[in-house]
Amino acid sequence: MKVNSNYFNLNESYLFSTITAKINEFSKYNPGKDIIRLGIGDVTLPLVPIVIDAMQKAVLEMGEAGTFKGYGEEQGYLFLRSAITRYYENKNVKLKEDEIFISDGAKSDLGNILDIFSIDNTVLIPDPVYPVYVDTNIMAGRKIIYIDGDINNDFLPIPNKETKADIIYLCSPNNPTGAVYNADQLKTWVNYALENDAVILFDSAYEAFIQDEELPSSIYQIDGAKDCAIEFCSFSKTAGFTGTRCGYTIIPHELKKENASLNKLWLRRQTTKFNGVPYIVQRGGEAVLSEQGLLQAKNNINYYLENAKTITGVLEKLDIWFTGGKNAPYIWLKCPDNMKSWDFFDYLLNETGIAGTPGAGFGKNGESYFRLSAFGKKENMIEAAARLENIGAKA
Amino acid sequence: MKVNSNYFNLNESYLFSTITAKINEFSKYNPGKDIIRLGIGDVTLPLVPIVIDAMQKAVLEMGEAGTFKGYGEEQGYLFLRSAITRYYENKNVKLKEDEIFISDGAKSDLGNILDIFSIDNTVLIPDPVYPVYVDTNIMAGRKIIYIDGDINNDFLPIPNKETKADIIYLCSPNNPTGAVYNADQLKTWVNYALENDAVILFDSAYEAFIQDEELPSSIYQIDGAKDCAIEFCSFSKTAGFTGTRCGYTIIPHELKKENASLNKLWLRRQTTKFNGVPYIVQRGGEAVLSEQGLLQAKNNINYYLENAKTITGVLEKLDIWFTGGKNAPYIWLKCPDNMKSWDFFDYLLNETGIAGTPGAGFGKNGESYFRLSAFGKKENMIEAAARLENIGAKA
Repeated sequence: MKVNSNYFNLNESYLFSTITAKINEFSKYNPGKDIIRLGIGDVTLPLVPIVIDAMQKAVLEMGEAGTFKGYGEEQGYLFLRSAITRYYENKNVKLKEDEIFISDGAKSDLGNILDIFSIDNTVLIPDPVYPVYVDTNIMAGRKIIYIDGDINNDFLPIPNKETKADIIYLCSPNNPTGAVYNADQLKTWVNYALENDAVILFDSAYEAFIQDEELPSSIYQIDGAKDCAIEFCSFSKTAGFTGTRCGYTIIPHELKKENASLNKLWLRRQTTKFNGVPYIVQRGGEAVLSEQGLLQAKNNINYYLENAKTITGVLEKLDIWFTGGKNAPYIWLKCPDNMKSWDFFDYLLNETGIAGTPGAGFGKNGESYFRLSAFGKKENMIEAAARLENIGAKA
Repeated sequence: MKVNSNYFNLNESYLFSTITAKINEFSKYNPGKDIIRLGIGDVTLPLVPIVIDAMQKAVLEMGEAGTFKGYGEEQGYLFLRSAITRYYENKNVKLKEDEIFISDGAKSDLGNILDIFSIDNTVLIPDPVYPVYVDTNIMAGRKIIYIDGDINNDFLPIPNKETKADIIYLCSPNNPTGAVYNADQLKTWVNYALENDAVILFDSAYEAFIQDEELPSSIYQIDGAKDCAIEFCSFSKTAGFTGTRCGYTIIPHELKKENASLNKLWLRRQTTKFNGVPYIVQRGGEAVLSEQGLLQAKNNINYYLENAKTITGVLEKLDIWFTGGKNAPYIWLKCPDNMKSWDFFDYLLNETGIAGTPGAGFGKNGESYFRLSAFGKKENMIEAAARLENIGAKA
């Protein structure tokens, strides 16, 4: 018996455990000093009323013989897949219901999608990035190459002709940087994928934060994308479903490799290794996409974006370089005085009691950068902004 | 770009689609004749009241800022893992909370667990069997060998010394046969695994149906099992969660291969490629395992077992060989007059309007056998029994 030895090549991530340890130590030596946590990538506002109502109703249905639901289709109930096609119609994207697969979240699907691709493919991953893209491919033993995001390209890297890759991860709006590709940039990626027979795995989990109508909120708004891209989305950040678990993956019928429909391969994967999302949760997802649901969800998103504005306002005043925060819940800033990420973490915590996330935790290009999240409570954001302004004045 | 070519080695399963097509044709030519479906592997009784109450409460919590839950631990809330340790204490099995991983169901985990094992392992699968064990290994490209279940071993195969395998699937109570291993038989398997450095993947999804207290309902009731077995269980059949989605996987700390803890490998897999089960659903699972919840769930199980008795009573009268139905919701019968499985399907449907599942759909050893499910409604079971008795009288 042999285990999967690729697991031995994984680096243990101590990012969040180190942050927690440092915060605990700070608390110990500074009792009574309240810490504002701007490191968290989780939402804080409760689910909106229409979602609660829909799930309450669905729970009651599960308790009555006439309305009880057993196994549903692995790819999700048609009522939810239809609601998603209507959501995409508003983006001028036409999808068929059987191009949509409901899942328990984008993280699961982003990892599991790799099942349908050969181990022999080369993977291209932007740096800095959400660490899960890297780890899932190390686990499978694929060759990984990186493309640099940095201050020169506003952390929105574009491929050059020498780059040879088969599977490409893009995340826009980006985690951790909050940067968003424009249509021209995405078109460059789509053209690259089409020319190189590559597949783009497009993580659009933060698309609901996009305010600028010129920016694409789905890769399928780009011509040719249906021939080369799979899109992963989720209700986690759109509607606070991080603890409710519902996402979806879109694989257009046009997308074929080696004469095989990737849609059909994924359908086979999901019907064999997955058994669908709870009926109750799918009714919650449907409620999000109703007219009233979208308005209620939008209110929450605006709340977080106001938080972001509170912080970016101070950064502008202090003349600190940053990206994100306008069409994304994350603000990615350059550490002042060329401080290293972890040094700035310590400095910020000690001087202001604010805990953020060191950019170095997201890849080598994250060194000397820092992520602040806007998912906190408004009053904490206002307080954080005041403290930041103070250190600016002192510095 | 290459796809995973192992997928091209999968056989399309036409089992349930062919059954549906045959039933539709029968209906077309026999309008008004009502069909009793004993083919279904899904539950029919609604969720019990205590589960509905718990989920109602949890939904309301998600709507209030003070009680809202975002991301939980990928491996599940401690309240549910603790409840499972208490459930296992009643089986005289001691588990630690961090040996338990909450999931969206046994099907997902039975497929995904393969991630932590090398492709080079040989897999041993009983025939007949739940088709997912076979397909998930074909997808990964592993060598599969089979061990025969047949009338001579009551469809409970036992390994011989010549068999060489690294990963072994056992399902007890079995799907499709309803047969249950006794402690001696399981001890033989555990000894085999220990001697061969193999891992047993023990699917105990139907354990709650076991009535005979001499029969093991967890493999950990067998000495040595913690050193060689992973157990997969679920609330699907225990408490009708087929559409609510909650299961759990147990990996004891003792279980090590190549000096690696399988528990730690799986933890790494799940924290990277999974994001936990909905809080609402986990509260439902906790309610199942409460004292009152177990009583309510037991009532439903007894209802299904009464159904099984209604059918097996007639089979005994008709002197038709069968196994299962006593400690399992499935009855596995030998087709009368050595009929082939599909011939008996047609015969039964045409003569009685009863639709079952041809045994041939579960592997070569299923040929000339037939599965009946007890998950239907009581009144349908009584009617089915009367019709069966009738054909017996005619034959």
